[in-house]
Amino acid sequence: MSKQASKELEVFPNPKPSRDYTIYIESPEFTCLCPKTGQPDFATLKLEYIPDAFCVELKSWKIYLWSYRNEGGFHEDLTNKILDDLVELLNPRYIRLTADFNVRGGIYTTITAEHQSPDWTRKD
Amino acid sequence: MSKQASKELEVFPNPKPSRDYTIYIESPEFTCLCPKTGQPDFATLKLEYIPDAFCVELKSWKIYLWSYRNEGGFHEDLTNKILDDLVELLNPRYIRLTADFNVRGGIYTTITAEHQSPDWTRKD
Amino acid sequence: MSKQASKELEVFPNPKPSRDYTIYIESPEFTCLCPKTGQPDFATLKLEYIPDAFCVELKSWKIYLWSYRNEGGFHEDLTNKILDDLVELLNPRYIRLTADFNVRGGIYTTITAEHQSPDWTRKD
Amino acid sequence: MSKQASKELEVFPNPKPSRDYTIYIESPEFTCLCPKTGQPDFATLKLEYIPDAFCVELKSWKIYLWSYRNEGGFHEDLTNKILDDLVELLNPRYIRLTADFNVRGGIYTTITAEHQSPDWTRKD
Amino acid sequence: MSKQASKELEVFPNPKPSRDYTIYIESPEFTCLCPKTGQPDFATLKLEYIPDAFCVELKSWKIYLWSYRNEGGFHEDLTNKILDDLVELLNPRYIRLTADFNVRGGIYTTITAEHQSPDWTRKD
Amino acid sequence: MSKQASKELEVFPNPKPSRDYTIYIESPEFTCLCPKTGQPDFATLKLEYIPDAFCVELKSWKIYLWSYRNEGGFHEDLTNKILDDLVELLNPRYIRLTADFNVRGGIYTTITAEHQSPDWTRKD
Amino acid sequence: MSKQASKELEVFPNPKPSRDYTIYIESPEFTCLCPKTGQPDFATLKLEYIPDAFCVELKSWKIYLWSYRNEGGFHEDLTNKILDDLVELLNPRYIRLTADFNVRGGIYTTITAEHQSPDWTRKD
Amino acid sequence: MSKQASKELEVFPNPKPSRDYTIYIESPEFTCLCPKTGQPDFATLKLEYIPDAFCVELKSWKIYLWSYRNEGGFHEDLTNKILDDLVELLNPRYIRLTADFNVRGGIYTTITAEHQSPDWTRKD
Amino acid sequence: MSKQASKELEVFPNPKPSRDYTIYIESPEFTCLCPKTGQPDFATLKLEYIPDAFCVELKSWKIYLWSYRNEGGFHEDLTNKILDDLVELLNPRYIRLTADFNVRGGIYTTITAEHQSPDWTRKD
Amino acid sequence: MSKQASKELEVFPNPKPSRDYTIYIESPEFTCLCPKTGQPDFATLKLEYIPDAFCVELKSWKIYLWSYRNEGGFHEDLTNKILDDLVELLNPRYIRLTADFNVRGGIYTTITAEHQSPDWTRKD
Repeated sequence: MSKQASKELEVFPNPKPSRDYTIYIESPEFTCLCPKTGQPDFATLKLEYIPDAFCVELKSWKIYLWSYRNEGGFHEDLTNKILDDLVELLNPRYIRLTADFNVRGGIYTTITAEHQSPDWTRKD
Repeated sequence: MSKQASKELEVFPNPKPSRDYTIYIESPEFTCLCPKTGQPDFATLKLEYIPDAFCVELKSWKIYLWSYRNEGGFHEDLTNKILDDLVELLNPRYIRLTADFNVRGGIYTTITAEHQSPDWTRKD
Repeated sequence: MSKQASKELEVFPNPKPSRDYTIYIESPEFTCLCPKTGQPDFATLKLEYIPDAFCVELKSWKIYLWSYRNEGGFHEDLTNKILDDLVELLNPRYIRLTADFNVRGGIYTTITAEHQSPDWTRKD
Repeated sequence: MSKQASKELEVFPNPKPSRDYTIYIESPEFTCLCPKTGQPDFATLKLEYIPDAFCVELKSWKIYLWSYRNEGGFHEDLTNKILDDLVELLNPRYIRLTADFNVRGGIYTTITAEHQSPDWTRKD
Repeated sequence: MSKQASKELEVFPNPKPSRDYTIYIESPEFTCLCPKTGQPDFATLKLEYIPDAFCVELKSWKIYLWSYRNEGGFHEDLTNKILDDLVELLNPRYIRLTADFNVRGGIYTTITAEHQSPDWTRKD
Repeated sequence: MSKQASKELEVFPNPKPSRDYTIYIESPEFTCLCPKTGQPDFATLKLEYIPDAFCVELKSWKIYLWSYRNEGGFHEDLTNKILDDLVELLNPRYIRLTADFNVRGGIYTTITAEHQSPDWTRKD
Repeated sequence: MSKQASKELEVFPNPKPSRDYTIYIESPEFTCLCPKTGQPDFATLKLEYIPDAFCVELKSWKIYLWSYRNEGGFHEDLTNKILDDLVELLNPRYIRLTADFNVRGGIYTTITAEHQSPDWTRKD
Repeated sequence: MSKQASKELEVFPNPKPSRDYTIYIESPEFTCLCPKTGQPDFATLKLEYIPDAFCVELKSWKIYLWSYRNEGGFHEDLTNKILDDLVELLNPRYIRLTADFNVRGGIYTTITAEHQSPDWTRKD
Repeated sequence: MSKQASKELEVFPNPKPSRDYTIYIESPEFTCLCPKTGQPDFATLKLEYIPDAFCVELKSWKIYLWSYRNEGGFHEDLTNKILDDLVELLNPRYIRLTADFNVRGGIYTTITAEHQSPDWTRKD
Repeated sequence: MSKQASKELEVFPNPKPSRDYTIYIESPEFTCLCPKTGQPDFATLKLEYIPDAFCVELKSWKIYLWSYRNEGGFHEDLTNKILDDLVELLNPRYIRLTADFNVRGGIYTTITAEHQSPDWTRKD
């Protein structure tokens, strides 16, 4: 039982930096605490990005998500903070994060935020 | 049993006003009365917006929807009025409201209205 | 706007009392109030019965369900009371009522109750 | 344009009367008139039977259903009458008819009736 | 049983003519006769429009569709004629009609036609 | 292009005759000709059996089904004949064949026939 | 049993040539032979076109598809040839054909080809 | 933020003890820790019971499930322990608990346990 | 990269041997080689059992399935052999294994085998 | 058992090089080894391309995928390498490869890479 939740994300070098390609990672097991009531919240996180020099390592992403398990956070704030962490870590060409929260009080909420590198333009 | 339906919507400050991001809120429990027959109507409301300075508070949204429970209203009129209330409250960069009404007489009706702030343009 | 909610259910004579056959009626638009918080609850009611001398008239069933719109009631209690009303009204050979309530606090609840006439046995 | 709706059902000899086997016929295009309002009603008819000496011919079944197009009929009554017609025509070992009516007033209704020949018992 | 099928469509004033918004109406109970064989055809009609001064009244739309019940019509012709009737009635900013016909001879056919007012351009 | 359709089914010895177990084979690519019109019919065949001494070899089953490609046959007759062929070939403990035909004239037909060896009883 | 498969396609005059509208025809019962093994292949053909002066008659389309039943053909070749036949026949404003072949060797193949009349441009 | 996870379950009196009826409660937000790795596990709990004198109160059930959030537990053990707690609390006529765990290592695991009161027999 | 495929299955003691309860394990990633062609075959294995003294350890089950990756085996034979291995290992009260193989030549095959301990009878 | 996995892909001449059309090939049976743990990984490969002079032969594509069965490879690297092989082989006008990997540790990963010939531009 030695593994621990951690906010330390790890990277590995992009194996094909000459090509714009997309990595999509879906994590249906995100849970945090409601900052108002202290009770658990649940969400599916959907991450899509075009890597530049680095890719996020999947195990560290799993452990990073785990680190929110006993922390409070508002939906809109959390989604933007996780995106900010990824932008700082990866400096990706393009990145979008969607947080699809479980129903509360008969209401379903989804937050979607994205970021594009100022140094990059999509080639078409 | 002290809580009450109310048309008073509440806001909270947008935690990330520097970024254009999207909030989607689905409410499958909207009900009002048919202005012709007085009998109950049911709809799912789907709200999507890009906040500017403010976000709508979810509990107040739920109580706001509740306030229509014993009021009459035509489909097209209601959808536009609720959108108007949100535009006045939030002054959002972009907002769209879809009202998906339950079948009546073998006919399914959906109304979709949107509004964009004249001060804002989508960056691509 | 002269129609009104009412607990008065109406019947019509079973057109084929010599045969055991089944009538299934699904009503996805049931709503009442939570007796603890006063806020709206929503459910789908699924009724299945084998009529004896009488069948329930559908318009009166719709108006009967409407009569719960502004009344409080616990899930288990409501389901059993509606079944009792139908048993008293119809004295059916067999009847089953399922109330499938909308999610609250991440929890989905369904109540199922049935009744069989002591004078009747299924022929196989 | 010489074909016409007709209540005359046709049969053909069961090609394997020595075996109990099942024929299932689903007809999603049944329509009649509501006897109260005169407006169209729609249903899917699901017929399942174990033939004895005869099977129902499919084209005549289609034309038979067509004959209800401009006739009024209550749900419970129609279902039982169509079953009676089939029992008289085929004298089947076992037969069940389900009529799944389109939603009206937010309510879905399904009627199921069956008949078993007194001369026949299922072999298990 | 006094109601009657009729080609007379009714309108009501658009409650929000200052905004371009969309009304979607799905009617799964359209039926007419095949002009070649005289046998019934079935389709789902999907209507989407942006109203200008007027909206189509739903009950009259239902009764209008009913008026095709005993008329023959080719798929492509019917779809265009119904669209023409709506364009003449509503003079809408934009309108699209899709007729999704039931399978015949193992073949599924769908016709889609649209019209845009020459006086109107979509604002983006 | 040397392979040919053939009614010759092949078997292989049941590898576990001491145990009653089930083999289920679904073949969605069955086609024959309508004996009335000469036009193609299509069906999904669903075969389930408990083998005794032999199992049917899958390639020969595929080629056997192929042999019906240019033959006419009524639904009820074909289903019973294919079952008869399998009973004669395998003498299985239990066997059931379901033929799920594609829609014709708005009508879906499914035939189900089964056979049980007189020498065998299910152990429970 | 007089009907026969045939490559002769028939047309009828477009009832509304003044409008660009779309006809979509889905045929899930296409079958031909594999030119390598001689064994049957199966596909769903999805045809979408904007007619100019003529529309394809549905019965002749069905009989045309039937004509491939005992012919060999490679996926890519067949799809382009059928499209060529339709272009020659109809000279449509726009046409697209998708052939969705059944799985072989654990692999699903879909071919999509389209053609646009040089004389026509989409009005937006 | 005063609410706290707790193993204290609460009951309320069965409103209809004279009738055998079923309460079904589905909780898709159960999470605990893997006793081997310390990492989070996720499951959907499906509870079905026929109450005797008492019913479980839903808020306390939610808080009870929350109490497992930071505890380790093997799948088989947890499911049986939660069932034991409910049997001791409610002494129900019949109860079944299903724990449907999220995939790990490409493997999906579901545990189902049930208990029946020795004092009770199902009436049919 | 030290882990290795292995036919050595491991067990752990049943935590609740006093109760008959069910463990269901679904493994959609089973692959072996076709003994005729040497090419890969794929299946989903569905295992359901009521444990007696022991349960199968999930990691060893995963590694056991891995051991078939480069071995040939006929569908019917493999399913029975894996069941035999589990019966010998666990001596369960009841066990059922279903192997749902991927489509080959347009044909889907599923094998289901079960075993019950002679010392055990289901209590109802 | 003479067939063997091989990285040798074969081509055939494009039967319609004068037209830009699309070939889509879905292969749900891709498996390789995780380079970290040596354990099997599984993915569905989705390939879409517009051929120039050549098309990839399907049997050789199947055998090519088979060649990865006992090789290790990171998700991002493998996807780009397979795309590179196809670009070198076919020099297609456009090509896109999506690798949809099975869930690991509660996380689903999909990689999408594409390539366009510098000599080609889409005609619209």
